[in-house]
Amino acid sequence: MAEDNWGRWGDDDERGTLNLLTDDVVLEAARSCRSGKVYRLSLPLARTGVPLAAYRGGPQRLSLLTERDNLLGVAGVPDEDGACEDVLILPSHSVTHIDALCHAYHEGTFYNGFPASGFEPYGGATRLGVEKLSGFAGRGVLLDLAGFLGVSWLESDHVIAPGELADCARAQGVEIRAGDIVLLRTGWQDRFLAEVSRGDTPGHTQPGIGLEAARYLAERDIAALGADNSGIEPIPFPAGRPLAVHIEMLIRRGTPLIENMMLRELAADGCHEFLFVLGALPVPGATGSPVNPIAIA
Amino acid sequence: MAEDNWGRWGDDDERGTLNLLTDDVVLEAARSCRSGKVYRLSLPLARTGVPLAAYRGGPQRLSLLTERDNLLGVAGVPDEDGACEDVLILPSHSVTHIDALCHAYHEGTFYNGFPASGFEPYGGATRLGVEKLSGFAGRGVLLDLAGFLGVSWLESDHVIAPGELADCARAQGVEIRAGDIVLLRTGWQDRFLAEVSRGDTPGHTQPGIGLEAARYLAERDIAALGADNSGIEPIPFPAGRPLAVHIEMLIRRGTPLIENMMLRELAADGCHEFLFVLGALPVPGATGSPVNPIAIA
Amino acid sequence: MAEDNWGRWGDDDERGTLNLLTDDVVLEAARSCRSGKVYRLSLPLARTGVPLAAYRGGPQRLSLLTERDNLLGVAGVPDEDGACEDVLILPSHSVTHIDALCHAYHEGTFYNGFPASGFEPYGGATRLGVEKLSGFAGRGVLLDLAGFLGVSWLESDHVIAPGELADCARAQGVEIRAGDIVLLRTGWQDRFLAEVSRGDTPGHTQPGIGLEAARYLAERDIAALGADNSGIEPIPFPAGRPLAVHIEMLIRRGTPLIENMMLRELAADGCHEFLFVLGALPVPGATGSPVNPIAIA
Amino acid sequence: MAEDNWGRWGDDDERGTLNLLTDDVVLEAARSCRSGKVYRLSLPLARTGVPLAAYRGGPQRLSLLTERDNLLGVAGVPDEDGACEDVLILPSHSVTHIDALCHAYHEGTFYNGFPASGFEPYGGATRLGVEKLSGFAGRGVLLDLAGFLGVSWLESDHVIAPGELADCARAQGVEIRAGDIVLLRTGWQDRFLAEVSRGDTPGHTQPGIGLEAARYLAERDIAALGADNSGIEPIPFPAGRPLAVHIEMLIRRGTPLIENMMLRELAADGCHEFLFVLGALPVPGATGSPVNPIAIA
Repeated sequence: MAEDNWGRWGDDDERGTLNLLTDDVVLEAARSCRSGKVYRLSLPLARTGVPLAAYRGGPQRLSLLTERDNLLGVAGVPDEDGACEDVLILPSHSVTHIDALCHAYHEGTFYNGFPASGFEPYGGATRLGVEKLSGFAGRGVLLDLAGFLGVSWLESDHVIAPGELADCARAQGVEIRAGDIVLLRTGWQDRFLAEVSRGDTPGHTQPGIGLEAARYLAERDIAALGADNSGIEPIPFPAGRPLAVHIEMLIRRGTPLIENMMLRELAADGCHEFLFVLGALPVPGATGSPVNPIAIA
Repeated sequence: MAEDNWGRWGDDDERGTLNLLTDDVVLEAARSCRSGKVYRLSLPLARTGVPLAAYRGGPQRLSLLTERDNLLGVAGVPDEDGACEDVLILPSHSVTHIDALCHAYHEGTFYNGFPASGFEPYGGATRLGVEKLSGFAGRGVLLDLAGFLGVSWLESDHVIAPGELADCARAQGVEIRAGDIVLLRTGWQDRFLAEVSRGDTPGHTQPGIGLEAARYLAERDIAALGADNSGIEPIPFPAGRPLAVHIEMLIRRGTPLIENMMLRELAADGCHEFLFVLGALPVPGATGSPVNPIAIA
Repeated sequence: MAEDNWGRWGDDDERGTLNLLTDDVVLEAARSCRSGKVYRLSLPLARTGVPLAAYRGGPQRLSLLTERDNLLGVAGVPDEDGACEDVLILPSHSVTHIDALCHAYHEGTFYNGFPASGFEPYGGATRLGVEKLSGFAGRGVLLDLAGFLGVSWLESDHVIAPGELADCARAQGVEIRAGDIVLLRTGWQDRFLAEVSRGDTPGHTQPGIGLEAARYLAERDIAALGADNSGIEPIPFPAGRPLAVHIEMLIRRGTPLIENMMLRELAADGCHEFLFVLGALPVPGATGSPVNPIAIA
Repeated sequence: MAEDNWGRWGDDDERGTLNLLTDDVVLEAARSCRSGKVYRLSLPLARTGVPLAAYRGGPQRLSLLTERDNLLGVAGVPDEDGACEDVLILPSHSVTHIDALCHAYHEGTFYNGFPASGFEPYGGATRLGVEKLSGFAGRGVLLDLAGFLGVSWLESDHVIAPGELADCARAQGVEIRAGDIVLLRTGWQDRFLAEVSRGDTPGHTQPGIGLEAARYLAERDIAALGADNSGIEPIPFPAGRPLAVHIEMLIRRGTPLIENMMLRELAADGCHEFLFVLGALPVPGATGSPVNPIAIA
């Protein structure tokens, strides 16, 4: 095993590089806000028109109560008043979501050496569940690779190299520091949405960072990593390297991944630094959570 | 109909008092952070041990993939590597959640006059769905009523009066301003959790604000309102006033409600002002969303 | 409105032509069994490889308990003993299913004049729910149209005519009588399954009976009608006749429809008469139910 | 391990004593029908008012489409016509259900020696899934123990003994034969329903057969076993014998169990022999299925 963060924050650590988000880091990020503009970085959590993997089943919203029910009548609520409610059926990794540190395993092991067999169908992950990372904040940095390369989107087979990250950061006036939450814009999502709006069925192949680029980010000690594609790394996996970026980031480094982020508006505004805030659903033992991350510029 | 905000931001407005959260308001809130400490304001989204209403069904986390599956084998992933995923079944109003402006209706009408009949089982709310309020940020203010009154929790039949809010704010050194996100701590949740941990079954009765207190807050033009109880207002409803606070806040004023918030840690730290950030799941047409709101002190 | 069964069994009737299944009819069907061979007429209720409509979401089986959990430990069950359980998420009209009489409406009305608006999200159908037809038995009759025409499957645009039903019945030595449960084999399902097993994505177009053939069956006073296609009638609907067969059978006649039935084995055995038994899940207010109908030859 | 059926039908057998249901057995059962009366042996699959175990979550029916949606408009269906559909969320062991042979394990093993570890969250049971027993028919025999003892229901702590089964069968004029599907009426369900209808919360303790009675039935080589209680055996388990009847029947003998059956109407009619037909939902890899078994007298 190459360089990793196992044991760095103790043998029992379940938060990985989120440990880098000290109060000081957060305070500096909050204080550096310049406009107060709020960006919502989530695509709609919808049944169609967004990136979904068929084997998971799609997200569903189903009405539980509407004005046709009078369940609150027992509480003295008159017929013309009442409440509307839903039941949501959501794959944990639907649309815009965060991967908990128990999402991926390598050689039978999660981050920090916890065994992949530590799962109970009823209880879920005994270690590294999404409730352990739950909510966090820090300095967000956008690397808009499509913008940097002057294209609407990277080609599907583009494997992003470390040098591209470095050059992009320099061109966009940001420096990647320890504890940063780095967001990568490939433009792939714009392509996906454009194809959907034309009535086409988007393909599954996607650009993403290669293993070397992941290591480049890991060596800079980032706290979390997001992208506007479905898996951070390219799909299909580059030859001989299945899950390589997940292994490097989630498992070796303990760095949560945030996928299918909507980064278009940040890019359009040329906003490359911001306060980033994410509140994952604290479902005990879950392997991930749909999220709506917020950036405050 | 008494004083309300219908039409104040246009006849098509679907965000209500969240319109008060201008960039300037957010910027000032972000800049006023003093320690950088991050608070997660959500209870666990668990099957048991948290406030749940039986008719909704409980939240469920079910494993979709674990290390026993090899679904990724087709992508070249070896057997000892792989991914773990879940499916979540979540009532929209589970545990810590936000009420969208289409959650409650009065005399057949939602906020801004949209008809309560504007619901489709497949499509959900055609107006005022939770995706319209989605993510927001602003200055959070904690009124710790239990702390102010020197008790662990308010009695179950305590109907909080406007004067108590005013006195509590003064004692705790905060002023309620236009655009604030006000969080009320009754201590009821601590009582609930204490009873659960003793093995008891907590009762359903709860303290909360009365209609006059709701009006007091509404007149100060707050942006959103949260509490550590299940319905902001008392349960059961005070005589002759079913849903009165929901009607006042959600329907007349267009002010989202955030329920079952975990405010204990903020109170323990004596933290009464903070940057508040909430990212609701942007499920189109949903009446609410489980959330994990974040406070940054 | 043409000929119908509204009021025939009273203004409150919710069982339609299942009323024809008197004890005598059932007894005669049971006594006419000749071999005792049991046929299961349901396709697998699986996530893939079976006819599914995307908008419904697919059926899901998710493990609730396996040998990894020890939930029964509290009941004194030792660790190496225990129970395995699942949660099923099933669209009511998944794969092989029965349409309740509240499944389709015409001019705002269900069978027997009950209004289509009689639906509550929480309570479901106030009338004609699947629990009203629940379980039934009678004489089953197979019309193997593909076999009769000497083809593996009818062409996708084949609209089955009354004369074909009559000729097929005669050729296969059966007579359609009042109270019969008639099953139609178009072969379409075999085509679907063959395409799936070749790795192809089957199209949606399907052969089925036209309105005249539906009337031919209705005039013979059949009790229920099944087929090996997804909607009994052709998909897409013949020009100018959307839902025409559903309207004729479900709404005018009160005749339940059973779709995506697996009839291949009955046909292969040349079995055209049998005891037919169906136990729908008695979910109050549901519009249908996945089923596993049984034929006993 | 005592007497068992492992290997009796081959090392790969996954149907256990259902193998006893030969065509001849079924034919004789079908021919012995005397009245043609159809009994539905399932309680409503409802959210409340029926025996449910909280840890499973309750069954839910949620509307997917009603007359308020116009999803079929794309297929040319006019607004006043359309379809109503639901999504069902059903624990596999909800209300009236069948236990597949992979439902319970003992010393890490299922029936016929298949290992309890043979479970995949995505794929479910690799062996002995409910689809293997799917649909079956045979001679049903009702032993109405409450009726035999002249009580409305057996006391909660009544552990049914072999002699009681023998005496009950004799008194009710039936003989238990190889291949029979035996249904036991304790009356407990009537007590449960009576308590519910009075507004009481029924307790969990229940009468059922003891291990010796299970062996008595197993030695008579029955094909399947049902009862009107929640677990066939008593709850709580008799001292020192956790899961003993499940172990004897499901695991040693390969005999499926059918629980929470509604047997009241059969008993009221004094109907002790009938054709029994059950169509379980053929969900691949599932550990059980809600069912609506049918008896034809």
